Amino acid sequence: MATHSEQSPPSGFRHRLHEIVFEADTPAGKLFDVVLLCAILLSVATVALESVAPIRERFGEELRAAEWGFTVLFTFEYLLRLVSVLKPWRYATSFFGVVDLIAILPTYLSLLLPGAQSLLVIRVLRLLRIFRVLKLASFLGQAEILLTALRASRQKIIVFLCGVMSTVVIMGALMYLVEGEKNGFDSIPRGMYWAVVTMTTVGFGDITPKTVVGQFIASLLMVAGYGILAVPTGIVSVELAAASRRHVDTQACPGCAAYGHDQDAVYCKHCGTALGPR
Amino acid sequence: MATHSEQSPPSGFRHRLHEIVFEADTPAGKLFDVVLLCAILLSVATVALESVAPIRERFGEELRAAEWGFTVLFTFEYLLRLVSVLKPWRYATSFFGVVDLIAILPTYLSLLLPGAQSLLVIRVLRLLRIFRVLKLASFLGQAEILLTALRASRQKIIVFLCGVMSTVVIMGALMYLVEGEKNGFDSIPRGMYWAVVTMTTVGFGDITPKTVVGQFIASLLMVAGYGILAVPTGIVSVELAAASRRHVDTQACPGCAAYGHDQDAVYCKHCGTALGPR
Amino acid sequence: MATHSEQSPPSGFRHRLHEIVFEADTPAGKLFDVVLLCAILLSVATVALESVAPIRERFGEELRAAEWGFTVLFTFEYLLRLVSVLKPWRYATSFFGVVDLIAILPTYLSLLLPGAQSLLVIRVLRLLRIFRVLKLASFLGQAEILLTALRASRQKIIVFLCGVMSTVVIMGALMYLVEGEKNGFDSIPRGMYWAVVTMTTVGFGDITPKTVVGQFIASLLMVAGYGILAVPTGIVSVELAAASRRHVDTQACPGCAAYGHDQDAVYCKHCGTALGPR
Amino acid sequence: MATHSEQSPPSGFRHRLHEIVFEADTPAGKLFDVVLLCAILLSVATVALESVAPIRERFGEELRAAEWGFTVLFTFEYLLRLVSVLKPWRYATSFFGVVDLIAILPTYLSLLLPGAQSLLVIRVLRLLRIFRVLKLASFLGQAEILLTALRASRQKIIVFLCGVMSTVVIMGALMYLVEGEKNGFDSIPRGMYWAVVTMTTVGFGDITPKTVVGQFIASLLMVAGYGILAVPTGIVSVELAAASRRHVDTQACPGCAAYGHDQDAVYCKHCGTALGPR
Repeated sequence: MATHSEQSPPSGFRHRLHEIVFEADTPAGKLFDVVLLCAILLSVATVALESVAPIRERFGEELRAAEWGFTVLFTFEYLLRLVSVLKPWRYATSFFGVVDLIAILPTYLSLLLPGAQSLLVIRVLRLLRIFRVLKLASFLGQAEILLTALRASRQKIIVFLCGVMSTVVIMGALMYLVEGEKNGFDSIPRGMYWAVVTMTTVGFGDITPKTVVGQFIASLLMVAGYGILAVPTGIVSVELAAASRRHVDTQACPGCAAYGHDQDAVYCKHCGTALGPR
Repeated sequence: MATHSEQSPPSGFRHRLHEIVFEADTPAGKLFDVVLLCAILLSVATVALESVAPIRERFGEELRAAEWGFTVLFTFEYLLRLVSVLKPWRYATSFFGVVDLIAILPTYLSLLLPGAQSLLVIRVLRLLRIFRVLKLASFLGQAEILLTALRASRQKIIVFLCGVMSTVVIMGALMYLVEGEKNGFDSIPRGMYWAVVTMTTVGFGDITPKTVVGQFIASLLMVAGYGILAVPTGIVSVELAAASRRHVDTQACPGCAAYGHDQDAVYCKHCGTALGPR
Repeated sequence: MATHSEQSPPSGFRHRLHEIVFEADTPAGKLFDVVLLCAILLSVATVALESVAPIRERFGEELRAAEWGFTVLFTFEYLLRLVSVLKPWRYATSFFGVVDLIAILPTYLSLLLPGAQSLLVIRVLRLLRIFRVLKLASFLGQAEILLTALRASRQKIIVFLCGVMSTVVIMGALMYLVEGEKNGFDSIPRGMYWAVVTMTTVGFGDITPKTVVGQFIASLLMVAGYGILAVPTGIVSVELAAASRRHVDTQACPGCAAYGHDQDAVYCKHCGTALGPR
Repeated sequence: MATHSEQSPPSGFRHRLHEIVFEADTPAGKLFDVVLLCAILLSVATVALESVAPIRERFGEELRAAEWGFTVLFTFEYLLRLVSVLKPWRYATSFFGVVDLIAILPTYLSLLLPGAQSLLVIRVLRLLRIFRVLKLASFLGQAEILLTALRASRQKIIVFLCGVMSTVVIMGALMYLVEGEKNGFDSIPRGMYWAVVTMTTVGFGDITPKTVVGQFIASLLMVAGYGILAVPTGIVSVELAAASRRHVDTQACPGCAAYGHDQDAVYCKHCGTALGPR
């Protein structure tokens, strides 16, 4: 990168730097991003391995050194990004800007607060940049469809979650009354935790009803949870189908340039003009 | 509120009170509802916290006082509602009227029956008023779609539940015979509880088959439950799709009688005829 | 019933008996079926309660007596059915005929083989008669839609189950090799049982991977099972949607009397005749 | 088979052998395949049974002998396939060629490496040949629809899995920090294993949160996992519906260019024009 900066005038240098650091269209930019992604993966693996006691005991020094190496690297990269962008503040307050910052902070924080380096796994969020590297426009399109579907079903999901939450609170209190402290349901919040574990069909089994009445109520809750599980799936399916359909046809009406026509539409639904062959 | 009542004649006072207590269109009415919702949330939290032993030991007095405070508040509010409404009996027997009443009864009941205050979590149902406060007409529309979908699939769901119940009874008895008391299946009802836990894929693990035959039968039940789980989801998906579609538009084209037009369609997508006002 | 038989000639008596015992259109027939359903429910409850040790100790005599009472009743009813039907052999070999027979056999069998009475829960299958009592034609229609959907997706489901079975065998052997006897995976069949428990997301927790490699393989299996779970749901959803659609339109073509037209069909797909307004 | 070879010239012999070994259209070919499938099933059962300690102790000799018998049989069959095919190398590197080879290797390998015979269960993959024996063209069609649906949703599923993986890493680290070693979360990889177990709603219960904060975070993860589970199901449903639709018919009406006709449609349902031959 040093060679690039020497060959170009300052403004051009900044533009080039921007192209390398932020874009993945040039060979240098692509290389930069691929190297970066590998570094992120390695740094997350380093943090994860350091938390394993036997590995920490044998390779603690090396892992700690690697961690500092990655942090210095990412700090340098963060500064590069701040320099190369036209409006640094806007980058620093953007989603990726914030992620880039909190991805380096925990190491420095661990000097004051031992153990804070576990927070470094937040770096995994930086991997989302992979979509730019792979230039997966269609991937982004797919992600967009997913998000559109989830956003469109937002209200239904909130209504649904309100119902789930009410059920959880009431069932938690009921089981606290029925089973009581001796069977592990030692408070209403504990009962609510059990109700969530049961309704979502996770079923850890760390707390289970022991009395006949408790097991009967639990059975009802499980069958209900079984049916309730169908609701979000149904919502997402319907919205995904709608989002896919909307996405599929991208033809604009020759009369009024409106789009979003159904696949089987022959005439524009807005102005009545024939849509013609596709 | 006292100032309002002095400025207005009795009938106007009652109308105003109604607007404040039951509606959320005026600033006073909205404030009343928001304060009420916070009070409900806090009172539910109070009940939940009181059930946690260490917290009860330290803050038992305060929590108990808060509980009585909320109960007095809600009793006063209940009386206000009875006063402000034109047909008090009709309100008292409506869904929210009953919920409002049973939301205050457990505290008084706890004077006679210690522990009854845990029933106060029923107050969480009062939170359903939130939909009025947020004026989320579209939320209600979404809830309606969900309910329409569930109601439309009611018969299919009953048929389905009958099948599930038969399977549960038969599998419960079979596992009782195969595994027997020594492996935890000490009665047919216990076996039925296990069958529900297994078929709904909750899988607590408090009772598990130990014999080879039992594990084989359990495997069959699990794979079957896996497929059966697909049925309610499929039902709800299909009904949700139908409900959404119906919601979208039910107008037939005056030209070719086709329907299934989008809500924003002005012309029929099949023949181009203007759809006319809706 | 005795009064009926006296008033009518033998053939008419047989016809009347048939109407009472097999149909639910006359008041007497409906009463017969409702009493029968209650008796079935009570007899299943009797068998279930008898299996609970403390109840058996206290009410063993009474429950045993009730069981014999129900068995005698059902034996008498079975004979009545054989008498009243025109082709007794055809009834005896039909689905309900076989169920009616095996619903009474276990009690007689329990004279020779103690404990066989638990098999009496098979009586629960007799409850399927409820659909006739309630005259729920639409219920049967719904059940038919469900069955049509399942039958239509039969081949897809078999292909799917073959894939699941192969995965279960291979994962079971893999975990047996990786985890070994000391961690509970003491044979390949045991490993296959674990794989079923895991893939269906039941997760009892009676056998769990302890080694790092085992937990990694288990994680992959779980995520795969997560995605695989989507397949039967998708299959059933699609077939249910198709079955509902086909079912919805029951109009026959005025030209060729064919039916099964789509809801948006304007012309018969078989002969091209206009279908007219619906 | 010896009789066949004597009656026919070498090239014809090879052709005949090919028909018997690779096809299932002639009686001899069908017999060969059915015998082969039974042998595969039996050999997999042999391997599974040999891993059960009590059975191995009693019948170890016999099972080991059967295993060698099957291996010799399959080796002979593999050689036959190599001989009968025109381009042996192409067969040997095809999917089934590789499967056929690795289905016989572990027995020979077990001479050097005791225990390797458990890998023989890979033979179960050979059962996929069953589709040819049963001549289930429609089965293959169904499998193709399933695969098309899965392939079409590949990108959405990758996007989805990236999101799941990020959540797993972050939740694993979070729980490691919150719960710590004393509650079983002794490293970040262990926490990630727990996060997978929880998000997929498997819920073994071998590691569970003990602290209040941990249980609260776990509850959030479970409810989120609940909603997230809906996404792959929705994706597969939508793609399956699309794949089925595409499979049904892709012909456009010559009159009005509408499509989406049923497979048995002779006339366009929109304008009544004859659809012509397909």
